[in-house]
Amino acid sequence: MQDFTFWNPTKIIFGKNTVKAIGSEAQAFGRKALMVYGRSSIKRSGVYDQVVESLKEAGIQIVEYAEVKSNPVLSHTREGIELARREGVEMIIAVGGGSVIDESKSIAAAVKGQTDVWDYYAGSATIRDALPLLVVLTLAATGSEMNSGAVLTNEDTLQKFNIGSPHLFPKVSILDPTATTTVPARYVAYSAADAITHLLEGYFTGVDPETFIQDRFVESLVEAIMASTARILNDPEDYEARAAMMWAATWALNGFPTAGIGPHGFPNHMIEHSLSALYDVPHGAGLSIVLPAWMSYAARTAPAKYARFAAKVFRIEDKDQAAAAEQGIAALKGWFERIGTPTRLASFDISEGDLDRIAENATMLANKWGLTAYTKEVIAEVLRLCL
Amino acid sequence: MQDFTFWNPTKIIFGKNTVKAIGSEAQAFGRKALMVYGRSSIKRSGVYDQVVESLKEAGIQIVEYAEVKSNPVLSHTREGIELARREGVEMIIAVGGGSVIDESKSIAAAVKGQTDVWDYYAGSATIRDALPLLVVLTLAATGSEMNSGAVLTNEDTLQKFNIGSPHLFPKVSILDPTATTTVPARYVAYSAADAITHLLEGYFTGVDPETFIQDRFVESLVEAIMASTARILNDPEDYEARAAMMWAATWALNGFPTAGIGPHGFPNHMIEHSLSALYDVPHGAGLSIVLPAWMSYAARTAPAKYARFAAKVFRIEDKDQAAAAEQGIAALKGWFERIGTPTRLASFDISEGDLDRIAENATMLANKWGLTAYTKEVIAEVLRLCL
Repeated sequence: MQDFTFWNPTKIIFGKNTVKAIGSEAQAFGRKALMVYGRSSIKRSGVYDQVVESLKEAGIQIVEYAEVKSNPVLSHTREGIELARREGVEMIIAVGGGSVIDESKSIAAAVKGQTDVWDYYAGSATIRDALPLLVVLTLAATGSEMNSGAVLTNEDTLQKFNIGSPHLFPKVSILDPTATTTVPARYVAYSAADAITHLLEGYFTGVDPETFIQDRFVESLVEAIMASTARILNDPEDYEARAAMMWAATWALNGFPTAGIGPHGFPNHMIEHSLSALYDVPHGAGLSIVLPAWMSYAARTAPAKYARFAAKVFRIEDKDQAAAAEQGIAALKGWFERIGTPTRLASFDISEGDLDRIAENATMLANKWGLTAYTKEVIAEVLRLCL
Repeated sequence: MQDFTFWNPTKIIFGKNTVKAIGSEAQAFGRKALMVYGRSSIKRSGVYDQVVESLKEAGIQIVEYAEVKSNPVLSHTREGIELARREGVEMIIAVGGGSVIDESKSIAAAVKGQTDVWDYYAGSATIRDALPLLVVLTLAATGSEMNSGAVLTNEDTLQKFNIGSPHLFPKVSILDPTATTTVPARYVAYSAADAITHLLEGYFTGVDPETFIQDRFVESLVEAIMASTARILNDPEDYEARAAMMWAATWALNGFPTAGIGPHGFPNHMIEHSLSALYDVPHGAGLSIVLPAWMSYAARTAPAKYARFAAKVFRIEDKDQAAAAEQGIAALKGWFERIGTPTRLASFDISEGDLDRIAENATMLANKWGLTAYTKEVIAEVLRLCL
């Protein structure tokens, strides 16, 4: 195991009908909140009404800020920062999934700063403080509800960048599985791919051999996500499956699975960030396209961990490690296809002629993230496997 | 999964030679610390010198308070509270294992309170605040370094009671596996039994059937602890094994394994607390005696989970659930014996004539903890299986 610091102070309130706890939790942080959300889904599901009622009962004044896009964008974030400043809100309440939470983190940090929000993403400014952030989670996928990271897309420069700061941990996240009951099948599948990729990035790119605890945890959560997805697609109102999916996705990216594994990369996220910066690709759908391709590429030179993955998750045993690895990757790809998340760029009308542009964009990220092995040629090779 | 709140704000600094980080971490909490420790082991191991040097370099004034007993006692705790008050310390720094940390928690809470420390344990007062507590861990076993609980023995009344309060989470815990290199084989074995029991209490007493994530985590950590123990006994300086043991023991009782499993009990701890209140029995040694006996008792009426445990941890497959359960319990008991932690009361010269007294004491705890199924007769029956 390698040295690490682990600190995750987010308070999780998990369970049936816990959305209504938001008011009493918010009282600890002030009397006026910016309530950030996306489009109409929380109104259809009833979560909007529950949140507003709870906040009103608790005497919290609400400033609404809606229309956060899937893959949040800079212009809308800047408007949110202006609104939060103008209204003098004391906290941010994110009601949604990863996009809403991430945009809320950007707003929370920038309101307390002296610089344009993009400076944090570009790396020219450091986050020193943030407004308190509370979350009502409505999509089990990104893990943003219990971590200190966020992403944002600059529509002008077509850059999807990320930030991380201890100030960005939500103070409280309410994880109510019933709030996800109306998430449609397609997004359940994308979300499963997202959470599984979070788990597998560290699992496959870490190089420390003494990570029994972390490896077993990752394998167990992948299995939990797969089993839950199957149940949810069969019965969207299966509370237990929604609950397991929610808890697994939260722990997939909260720092525990990677604690002690040492240096590791996020090459799939790197390529996917370029995909969704350039095209209208949902994050999870982009990941289910990139992940099997990247695994095939990476397993060529070092198949052992992929063979282990095949054995532990898909019960594939083959003495030939490379063959076992291939079968495991094919099994994962087949599973993605069966649940309805794409595994080919063609699903978004992206063809060979587009690869150069994507690889160019991803190379910029590779440099930013220090993934020096990922030259433009390597990225293009992975992308060709996504065709 | 059942509803729960999960919140664990302890910052963990984990790794080789991290003990020397204590000074810079302490600076955030003041300039004067009560440094609590046990006997001479931290002086022999060099940890004492590292801590003192780091604190002095950081300009932290140290008030030493040594001689904490294994199974900390009320009289010594009261003296520590007096000393902390008299010296006006701003924080407590615990350098040791569970006993030192637990006594430090008692001191930290009582210094800020208006009442005798035992009132918290007796349940007649509530902890409202505590001095900041920092930990340098030297024994991987109890999990106290990342939780909000503590135990204390009242030598006059022969009561070993426990407390829990969110104010008792350590602010920072330094987990340096090299600080445990000198822990002798016998205590490695006791510690393994302690951590395994922490994991299995919830695993076996929870009744919710939908706990795949929690069950798999528990099984993985039990396996990690068993594998690490074998390696440490073979080579006490095996850093990787010491590291895995430390991380596994910390997570065995930090709230995550039990989050979502619903109501569950600690019957083995209940009986062991009486054992070590009445006799000079190390906590882990008491648990390795009680646990297999209690499992045998409990598996009689509901063997399914015990059969699962046998399959997952010991690869025992038997279509007859009761038979599989028995084999799994025998395997665990045999493993305890092989590593050198006792499985019979006779190891501490406790015989049948003593059982009534132990059962009487444990019945008091059963009432206190609401474990109403544990009448004196039931407890005596479990104890007879420990003979």
